[in-house]
Amino acid sequence: MKVAILGATGETGTSILGALLDSTEPRYEITALVRKSSLEKPEALALKEKGINVVAADLSGPEDELARALDGINTVISAISATDLLAQIPLINAAQAAGVKRFLPCCFAPIIPPAGILGLRDIVKKKEQVINHIKKVKLPYTIVDIGYWYQLMLPRLPSGRVDYALPITLGGIPGDGNTPCAFTDLPDIGRWVARIIADPRTLNKMVFAYNTVLTMNQAYDLLEEASGEKIERNYISEAAVMEGVARAEANCPPADSFDYFEVVKYQYFNALGIRGYNTPEYARYLGYVDATELYPDMKVTTPEVYCERLLSGKATMIYQRLMSAAQ
Amino acid sequence: MKVAILGATGETGTSILGALLDSTEPRYEITALVRKSSLEKPEALALKEKGINVVAADLSGPEDELARALDGINTVISAISATDLLAQIPLINAAQAAGVKRFLPCCFAPIIPPAGILGLRDIVKKKEQVINHIKKVKLPYTIVDIGYWYQLMLPRLPSGRVDYALPITLGGIPGDGNTPCAFTDLPDIGRWVARIIADPRTLNKMVFAYNTVLTMNQAYDLLEEASGEKIERNYISEAAVMEGVARAEANCPPADSFDYFEVVKYQYFNALGIRGYNTPEYARYLGYVDATELYPDMKVTTPEVYCERLLSGKATMIYQRLMSAAQ
Repeated sequence: MKVAILGATGETGTSILGALLDSTEPRYEITALVRKSSLEKPEALALKEKGINVVAADLSGPEDELARALDGINTVISAISATDLLAQIPLINAAQAAGVKRFLPCCFAPIIPPAGILGLRDIVKKKEQVINHIKKVKLPYTIVDIGYWYQLMLPRLPSGRVDYALPITLGGIPGDGNTPCAFTDLPDIGRWVARIIADPRTLNKMVFAYNTVLTMNQAYDLLEEASGEKIERNYISEAAVMEGVARAEANCPPADSFDYFEVVKYQYFNALGIRGYNTPEYARYLGYVDATELYPDMKVTTPEVYCERLLSGKATMIYQRLMSAAQ
Repeated sequence: MKVAILGATGETGTSILGALLDSTEPRYEITALVRKSSLEKPEALALKEKGINVVAADLSGPEDELARALDGINTVISAISATDLLAQIPLINAAQAAGVKRFLPCCFAPIIPPAGILGLRDIVKKKEQVINHIKKVKLPYTIVDIGYWYQLMLPRLPSGRVDYALPITLGGIPGDGNTPCAFTDLPDIGRWVARIIADPRTLNKMVFAYNTVLTMNQAYDLLEEASGEKIERNYISEAAVMEGVARAEANCPPADSFDYFEVVKYQYFNALGIRGYNTPEYARYLGYVDATELYPDMKVTTPEVYCERLLSGKATMIYQRLMSAAQ
């Protein structure tokens, strides 16, 4: 099956690319769509060395050129990391013109209501606008959301031994820490996607793929037990979270600035820690099908195994490029 | 089962109310929510005579008063005919506070993409905003769409004998007249709704309930055959439809004016007659479940029977109040 990926070198794209390369049943023939100006960059050359077909795709160029780049492609996966997802619109039109059989818009995120909770989703990324455009042009689609990453789940330890992998932490526990939240190991995202795109049952569906459901207290317990260290629990009351949301939204920094993280942080505290949207139950309520029910045989990384990986120094630092850019 | 209806005296509300009153399995105990100022009007008194509990509900008043009016109500059906559906927001909040088990926002319309096609839906009525608000507050919901009414499907006859029931006609056939379109008899809407709200399978789902699928050519054929009269077929090419859409949108009259019908007409021509959105296939693509599959035993009015009713002078004139207001 011929699959094209946009954003193959980002965090999510790397996960998806790795899993598609590993897949034997089905075997995927992969095309990475990259900017023309990036064709000779080390990242693109590294993709070529892995046997990936690297093709120039200019999202702001003519749509018929984009459509030619998608000729013969069965599935297009968008994992662009742009702050404005509307850049996907020409790709959607091109995919429709090229007869693409399934389009995965860039989602791969926690379960959040369509509007009014996470500015990153509705105001900045305009995710619903992208999905609505897909529906308007009748392009076959699958929406995949994956919960919150293990990689952003845990706090630092007093010893500092996990700092190497945790450039960003939330720095607190919203509410009483007992709200359930779905988590996924970043490398497993691709493994879920490799199953989902080969499955006719997921066509024109929203799919929620996640490894486990934990409360923040349970996540802290896990790391405490595995590390033998005691971690201070900085609970942030619901009132303080809502105050933080209001303050961050009132003084909203530009969405492409590093400070915007403050807005996202409080909105996430509210969405995931107080209101409890990022759960299998709420996903079902929104109309998602549950990947753990579709693929009961799927073996994924448990939070315990992730903790061990983190403590053994073998976890991967995420957002490396973002971090270097911010320094 | 205790059901509250908002807009019980409108076209859709009357259909729903009638079917709920007729239902014996389950038996519905009905509350009509009306404006305080309308409590003594003949329509409200007529409702009381039918054994319906008539209760004052002020959508712009305090939400806790609204919530008290919904105390003990299992299902709330909104069939308000306001041009701005956002008036439902306080009712949604009140329903959530009152512990309502299922909320039907005012939909009962053809299948249309969420955005970018029908201004009546996304700009005027703000239907998605209402649905998104429901999801934000986690209120259990069912979205029911019903296609296009038989009552708006047919053209007038040269003899003038069906004019009595057709105050509005589209006055033309978009495209080549061969695009399939789903239709429902207005009185059957309530019968579908009576089934749907008693069914746990439809909770937190979008449901498409329709009587039949016809092309406009087939609809004209039917009426010609039943009446023995020949009807001129005024085909409006796709280019002319798109020009009409652009012209109507560029000179957009106020949405609450009668002239806004011109915008709606061309957008409907495009949506239903050219793009073919209002079909069971496209509804399934959007995530709807199909009521004809859920209730295969449901007996509904066929277009042939509707034609007979229309020709025998027994059809009901729709939009009577709207028409008198416009004169």
